[in-house]
Amino acid sequence: MTDVTISEVGPRDGLQNTKQFMPTEAKKAWISAEAAAGVTEIEVCSFVSTKLIPQFSDAADVVAHALTIPGLSVAALIPNLKGAERAAATGVHKLSFPLSVSKGHSLSNVRKTPEEQLAEFKRIAEFLATLPKDKRPALSGGLSTAFGCTIDGPVDEKDVVRLAVGLVEAGAHDVSLADTVGYANPAQIKRLFIAVRREIGDKLTGAHLHNTRGLGLANAVAALETGIKTFDSSLGGMGGCPYAPGASGNVVTEDLVFMFEAMGLRTGIDLEKLLAVRQQVVEALPGAEFHGNVARAGLPKGFGAAA
Amino acid sequence: MTDVTISEVGPRDGLQNTKQFMPTEAKKAWISAEAAAGVTEIEVCSFVSTKLIPQFSDAADVVAHALTIPGLSVAALIPNLKGAERAAATGVHKLSFPLSVSKGHSLSNVRKTPEEQLAEFKRIAEFLATLPKDKRPALSGGLSTAFGCTIDGPVDEKDVVRLAVGLVEAGAHDVSLADTVGYANPAQIKRLFIAVRREIGDKLTGAHLHNTRGLGLANAVAALETGIKTFDSSLGGMGGCPYAPGASGNVVTEDLVFMFEAMGLRTGIDLEKLLAVRQQVVEALPGAEFHGNVARAGLPKGFGAAA
Repeated sequence: MTDVTISEVGPRDGLQNTKQFMPTEAKKAWISAEAAAGVTEIEVCSFVSTKLIPQFSDAADVVAHALTIPGLSVAALIPNLKGAERAAATGVHKLSFPLSVSKGHSLSNVRKTPEEQLAEFKRIAEFLATLPKDKRPALSGGLSTAFGCTIDGPVDEKDVVRLAVGLVEAGAHDVSLADTVGYANPAQIKRLFIAVRREIGDKLTGAHLHNTRGLGLANAVAALETGIKTFDSSLGGMGGCPYAPGASGNVVTEDLVFMFEAMGLRTGIDLEKLLAVRQQVVEALPGAEFHGNVARAGLPKGFGAAA
Repeated sequence: MTDVTISEVGPRDGLQNTKQFMPTEAKKAWISAEAAAGVTEIEVCSFVSTKLIPQFSDAADVVAHALTIPGLSVAALIPNLKGAERAAATGVHKLSFPLSVSKGHSLSNVRKTPEEQLAEFKRIAEFLATLPKDKRPALSGGLSTAFGCTIDGPVDEKDVVRLAVGLVEAGAHDVSLADTVGYANPAQIKRLFIAVRREIGDKLTGAHLHNTRGLGLANAVAALETGIKTFDSSLGGMGGCPYAPGASGNVVTEDLVFMFEAMGLRTGIDLEKLLAVRQQVVEALPGAEFHGNVARAGLPKGFGAAA
């Protein structure tokens, strides 16, 4: 029984921005260790062009390993139909498809407008419908730059709502809103999650938040208060925006788990074990940048004893 | 017209933990620049034993300068009656008195139990009552370690409520709750601010939060939602807990101002100017540690234009 679900995206979102190739065995060890700490969903890789991102040249191998872990929901990012076909062949449980709300980000990321990318999403849903049910992964739509864009600036909330509806109509199993560049604030989070929920109801399940300007955890609480129960985060805050050096990227898994557990919400995750996994990943990636306050400051005296 | 008040505590809380003596002229320049950026309240020093903390040997000189700045509310920390007498002689507007809720922290900080420190507070209030009204500073009580203690661990919420009532009965102009060691979480913040407000009403005005475990801004939003309008913070997150090296201390003024302004709340502070003040302080204190995400990541594209 848990109150919130942490979806670890480090092996995908974190490694996507890490120049150093993480050896396949180290990736597998990370995924195994984090699952053993109680994390029940991990986005383990991206099925993108391996020419574009060599980090994911071992994607199929990594998925095959993750699928051997009992009880773990194995997710992968797919930017297009080709990626979906490759991913589906591996037996992965869940496909995460990013759709940028802002045109500038969409063009720079996938060389398609948001409308073209929505059409691609529809083709993926249609392809998945041709698969036998037991070999059909769930298809999630993630609305990137939903809270603003480093290229286009502010994003119209009507566009977010419209594209969320478009994803559901095209066959999305669920939809999440992503603060890809760390522009969101708690008031905006509440407003937009409520506005999208009004249109697509419980199909809106997840929040993908970044801590670029330090507001990641405050935004998570705001999303939680609108009924969101699934939160993407990255061990050590790996990943994020390459345009803001030194700024942290994804919300830090350890800090997020600490916050929820401190608030009395059950994550199912053992924090001490999770901090050990962080240390394991830090050692496996000596060149990478890690963030997070709990790992530095330690847990409060008596933490967990009262629960 | 502002919606929230930022009370800058860097010149006191930040410098208290900085080994390097900041030259008096640099302190004055900091206070002037931050007031010019729109900050309306600054805790400029501490009237403690200068043998104990040589950093504040120039306290009277710093206060005298701060009092020349039009519109600035000048505050100083006082740990005892002797400090209050010295501070009152300078004409400072506001005295902040720390009262640790946990016995362990109180004994290690001021060598008195919480009850003995409450009695000291009463003596200070009585002394202030003997001063002519126009020379009488406002007396604020700050409940330290209200959310937990690095020495005693968890703190009983009943003790926080009881001591808040004690402060008001002893003559406190207002009371704030402090998460001195960064143990608080948003659920606890809401619960405790509501519980204390139930007993002392609008005498409860302020939140003094730390970002040790990354929850500072999330806790600020939680306090805001209970009606709190005055927030202590420190430029560059200076200060905080010497027992957690590398962990940030006080909530970072720049990040807090950014969050409130992004949420549509008026702080009266010019963020660009504030970031320039930060740079000025960084240059004046080459050995000190600074934190903060907004200074590294920059402001969002188009920020402020929509307001």
